[in-house]
Amino acid sequence: MDYETPQFYRVMQYAARADRDVVDMVSGNPDWDPPEAVRSGLRAYADGDADQFQYAPSRGLHGLREHIAARHGVDADRIVVTNGAGEANHLAMTGGLDHFDGGEILLADPVYPYYAGRANFIDAETTFVPVADDGRLDPDAVRAAASDDTAVIVVNSPNNPTGAVYDADAMAEFVAVAEENDALLVSDEVYDQFDYSGRFASALEIDSPNVVATNAFSKSMAITGFRVGYAVFPPTEGPTGKLVERATTRHMLTNVSGSRPAQYAVERAMETTEASYYEAARDRLRTRIDTFCEALDAAGAAYTRPDGGFYVLARFPDFPGTFDNAYRLVDDAGVAGMPGAAFGEARADWLRFSLTTPRVDTAAERLVEYFG
Amino acid sequence: MDYETPQFYRVMQYAARADRDVVDMVSGNPDWDPPEAVRSGLRAYADGDADQFQYAPSRGLHGLREHIAARHGVDADRIVVTNGAGEANHLAMTGGLDHFDGGEILLADPVYPYYAGRANFIDAETTFVPVADDGRLDPDAVRAAASDDTAVIVVNSPNNPTGAVYDADAMAEFVAVAEENDALLVSDEVYDQFDYSGRFASALEIDSPNVVATNAFSKSMAITGFRVGYAVFPPTEGPTGKLVERATTRHMLTNVSGSRPAQYAVERAMETTEASYYEAARDRLRTRIDTFCEALDAAGAAYTRPDGGFYVLARFPDFPGTFDNAYRLVDDAGVAGMPGAAFGEARADWLRFSLTTPRVDTAAERLVEYFG
Repeated sequence: MDYETPQFYRVMQYAARADRDVVDMVSGNPDWDPPEAVRSGLRAYADGDADQFQYAPSRGLHGLREHIAARHGVDADRIVVTNGAGEANHLAMTGGLDHFDGGEILLADPVYPYYAGRANFIDAETTFVPVADDGRLDPDAVRAAASDDTAVIVVNSPNNPTGAVYDADAMAEFVAVAEENDALLVSDEVYDQFDYSGRFASALEIDSPNVVATNAFSKSMAITGFRVGYAVFPPTEGPTGKLVERATTRHMLTNVSGSRPAQYAVERAMETTEASYYEAARDRLRTRIDTFCEALDAAGAAYTRPDGGFYVLARFPDFPGTFDNAYRLVDDAGVAGMPGAAFGEARADWLRFSLTTPRVDTAAERLVEYFG
Repeated sequence: MDYETPQFYRVMQYAARADRDVVDMVSGNPDWDPPEAVRSGLRAYADGDADQFQYAPSRGLHGLREHIAARHGVDADRIVVTNGAGEANHLAMTGGLDHFDGGEILLADPVYPYYAGRANFIDAETTFVPVADDGRLDPDAVRAAASDDTAVIVVNSPNNPTGAVYDADAMAEFVAVAEENDALLVSDEVYDQFDYSGRFASALEIDSPNVVATNAFSKSMAITGFRVGYAVFPPTEGPTGKLVERATTRHMLTNVSGSRPAQYAVERAMETTEASYYEAARDRLRTRIDTFCEALDAAGAAYTRPDGGFYVLARFPDFPGTFDNAYRLVDDAGVAGMPGAAFGEARADWLRFSLTTPRVDTAAERLVEYFG
């Protein structure tokens, strides 16, 4: 499959051209406000002295890195602030391929398409491990697929698109598989503020030189456009201590540094945003999940209620998740979802619906009417 | 030489630790204000709706690309907005290596260290063409160095560090050399608003499928920290029309997209900033060049008066441009400059002074006193 072209554009463009009102459940852009401190931080930055408009340190603003370090309980020298989780995953995956023997990247199926596209672009071999029926990656299946040729294993929790959340035991198992195969576990935790199960565990909780955790403020602060993310590399004194240095060099030679107004605003928002902001976002999504899953029941669809994240995968009777069916749903039901086929083979019969729209109720009603 | 570690940090850190007052002439950060519309643009962005905080298109905000296209008289579909000129050069150089036969990148000596560092990092061979005595790259010297193995030739005008500006004839010759050797000319024009000679010519003035021009607002708008740059690729209908597509994919899989608040502010500033803003910056630098070159005369230094850009290369009698001598100048004269050795071999006896400080007078007096 061609993972290099962002396939969600195809559905979004189709929906935009449709002759009728369509609820967009394709994109993963939060539809709620960022923390107020993001806005006030940008205003304060705009009033700053001329020298504040010049290069941030390549690894990111000092204070921002300190806040990130404190959040995760790690040394700041392990952190590179990146151009969103995208660049964090890029640095982690390329770094793992460079450092460890083997040319293979293990990915889940269904897969977040950017992982697969990047792996193809950098000429890595890819092996896909199908998730179990409940949408979860079984550590034993990952173990069976891993080999000496494996350099990188990517997991994503809470998961896009399955909604799976991995607990500490599962995460420890993924780390163990990486260690057993002399590979790097890249744990993308960009949805970590959207855990509804209470079971989410960061890979950083496991003390291992074979782990890089990636993250961003894109989803948690509803600022996907800011491009402020980060990667937490293994401790510098350990056997993989060079990973952070190499990633810093790659970051510098690609981007020089990240965008400072965005970093400044995020730093301010980290200082002042209350837990209630994140709780309100979770509550909003919990309500949407309830509404949407009720509709799926009424529509006779199979689905797994998400433990985390923004997305619901659903399979409707006799309605496989092809692009043609996604287009049909736009035209006939007024709901735009992503074809499961865009995420690989394991969920090719499914459709992914993003809950980042205030019109989940409307979409739910339309799906019940269409399928019910 | 190790181009991967930013060597200017070594001198800046040494200067910061010095026991005396030091004029910083190391960094190339503008010390003047950005256009007012950059500040007001950020404030307006901060007041925007929630959806304005989400992903910009991967190739950049539509209006920003249109303004850039209009500025250069090219189709917008040739433009990728990047994370500063750094990423623009990264996309151009990697794209040229991928597309054209051969594994060699031709660079000038003295070289802007990021070009050489990037070439090393991506495992390209590098060949350095020494500039002539006047600090200019002779097209015939480039022609003599180029071969079938050459995939990319990088020129930078106005030049960092020599201050050379290439006119239309020289630029046409560089393009011809690239065409003769089936290679890509990457023309980094980030200092194009700082031409004091009136002779600057963009590589885009020459109609060729073998040219990518790179640029940014970092220097022209005094916002190196914003990371808004761009690359202009060859026309999409020509024989190298795939270059822009491949660069877009690389950009997307590395960074997803650029930082939107910064792009938004630059778009506003492109709309409203008068020519007088850029003229004032040139006037400021012309005055500094006069002051500094007078001092160099009084100090008995050799130098070439810059035709463009921010920098003056100077050679003092019996004072080669080593790191040790740069440190000595910090301690004994209170002036921090970059060792010529950081830029290669051809100007290893020289020191580079950046004129981006309001204290050029003070530095000038100190150098006269020390060397005079």
